[in-house]
Amino acid sequence: MSHPSITDYIKERASLIERELAAYAPEEWHIPAVLKDAMTYSLMAGGKRLRPVMVLAAAEACGGSVEAALPVAAAVEMVHTYSLVHDDLPALDNDDYRRGRLTNHKMYGEAIAILAGDALLTHAFYSASRASRLYGVPAERVLDIIEELAVLAGPRGMVGGQVADMQGEQGLTQLAELEYIHLHKTSDLIVFSLKAGGRIGGATERQLSALETYGRNIGLAFQIQDDILDVVGDEQKLGKAVRSDEKMQKVTYPYFIGLEASRLKVTELTDLGKKAVRDAGFQAPERLLELADFLTERDH
Amino acid sequence: MSHPSITDYIKERASLIERELAAYAPEEWHIPAVLKDAMTYSLMAGGKRLRPVMVLAAAEACGGSVEAALPVAAAVEMVHTYSLVHDDLPALDNDDYRRGRLTNHKMYGEAIAILAGDALLTHAFYSASRASRLYGVPAERVLDIIEELAVLAGPRGMVGGQVADMQGEQGLTQLAELEYIHLHKTSDLIVFSLKAGGRIGGATERQLSALETYGRNIGLAFQIQDDILDVVGDEQKLGKAVRSDEKMQKVTYPYFIGLEASRLKVTELTDLGKKAVRDAGFQAPERLLELADFLTERDH
Repeated sequence: MSHPSITDYIKERASLIERELAAYAPEEWHIPAVLKDAMTYSLMAGGKRLRPVMVLAAAEACGGSVEAALPVAAAVEMVHTYSLVHDDLPALDNDDYRRGRLTNHKMYGEAIAILAGDALLTHAFYSASRASRLYGVPAERVLDIIEELAVLAGPRGMVGGQVADMQGEQGLTQLAELEYIHLHKTSDLIVFSLKAGGRIGGATERQLSALETYGRNIGLAFQIQDDILDVVGDEQKLGKAVRSDEKMQKVTYPYFIGLEASRLKVTELTDLGKKAVRDAGFQAPERLLELADFLTERDH
Repeated sequence: MSHPSITDYIKERASLIERELAAYAPEEWHIPAVLKDAMTYSLMAGGKRLRPVMVLAAAEACGGSVEAALPVAAAVEMVHTYSLVHDDLPALDNDDYRRGRLTNHKMYGEAIAILAGDALLTHAFYSASRASRLYGVPAERVLDIIEELAVLAGPRGMVGGQVADMQGEQGLTQLAELEYIHLHKTSDLIVFSLKAGGRIGGATERQLSALETYGRNIGLAFQIQDDILDVVGDEQKLGKAVRSDEKMQKVTYPYFIGLEASRLKVTELTDLGKKAVRDAGFQAPERLLELADFLTERDH
């Protein structure tokens, strides 16, 4: 059997994740209809499902089971989705569209969007907690995963990055500030995804540390690539207005160090991430290595 | 040593909880200052800390350690606090004051209030997850606690109740609808508190089931008492405008069955709750029994 391309691998894993997400709330659960609709609207809005794919890829790199990693993969997508729903709110980014569809609050109103976000965040912890009961992942490991999710998605992690980003809109003066934002707003959840997958797959401490280095570097590279695409990208491919950051007077990586140096930085970070993975003795590191290139070579 | 009154018991346990809450974010953690301030502002705003006291009381009823129950007690107060911060937002209840102080969004703006609520909710799961690492509570038990927190605070629980409440403002026609709101908006977190404390204390299945019955009944009684106080209570004691529900044209228990029948219902539910606890063979059920009376005899 030939080795499927990384694009096919991502598609195939994403479809497993879609199936897992689609089953997040069984029929017999009593949830007010509008709440369930609003949660489902944003959860099933598509996207490449990159974070949950990373959970599965890290589990597989350790020789672990894809199935056992699905509840945590779904959890990370729920956290990512809630963060988008809340970020889009009028009090925050005030966006009317995301991925070419109306944002949650434009569909359901602000109150329901706030509560649907809250519900998705809470339900993420439910989903993650089930890995033990459903697939026999040792309770200690699942608890470590939950603790780390709370750290990396919480005030020291993603929410902290979001607050710094908001404040940065009033004027960033240093590259270090922008890097703080990128690391927490983007890398933290990627680092979580990789380490959680690793834990499920039985990663050694050395491998967990390599996954952290890999995640931090490719997360930052991914975000710098996003900044670059926002300057040079093609509007149609991206499905959103380009130069929106510039219009919002938002400071990006190219603003500080220029386009060419930003591109070099992406390559450098990607290489650092891949090296960490290569040196950590994974059973099957290929997909992680391919994913790093896929993420930073994308044009949308 | 004489048996301290239930009021003294609550005060003493609440002070342990205050200390635990005050330490929620060590100095060395890097959290944007405004985010930490906003989280602390609402978390340390006082209140009787009834839910976390219930965690401790249930653990003690089983002969368990108060100390080991503190991380989960703090967690439930964080969840309660986040729910108040989000409920107060302009898009929801649009309240300017709570407990005589400006609400979070009046102090810090809507964006920070939304994110501070998100951070408190996420951090609650961090706090709960630490019970194992810090106090040796078996990981399986902590995982059960986390799963139940996610259920009872999530779309099937508290958030579901909140959505039903919002929709109910457009006109409830049946008592069953109001009961659904009360049970989920209020009882669910109380049930969680009691069962989580029970699990930490090593409760049997029969005791967990008794704690659920007790929590469901006194939670509903507590909420009906709240409805009653809103009709007849004294403005100064309550520290908020009475008859606010009526002004908002909000439907309450007395609206459906009258004041006297509502009072009888409170007594009946309290008795049912106490009976469940009495019959379940707890090592030290006294505080739970006293708590039930304290909650429903309060005049503010």
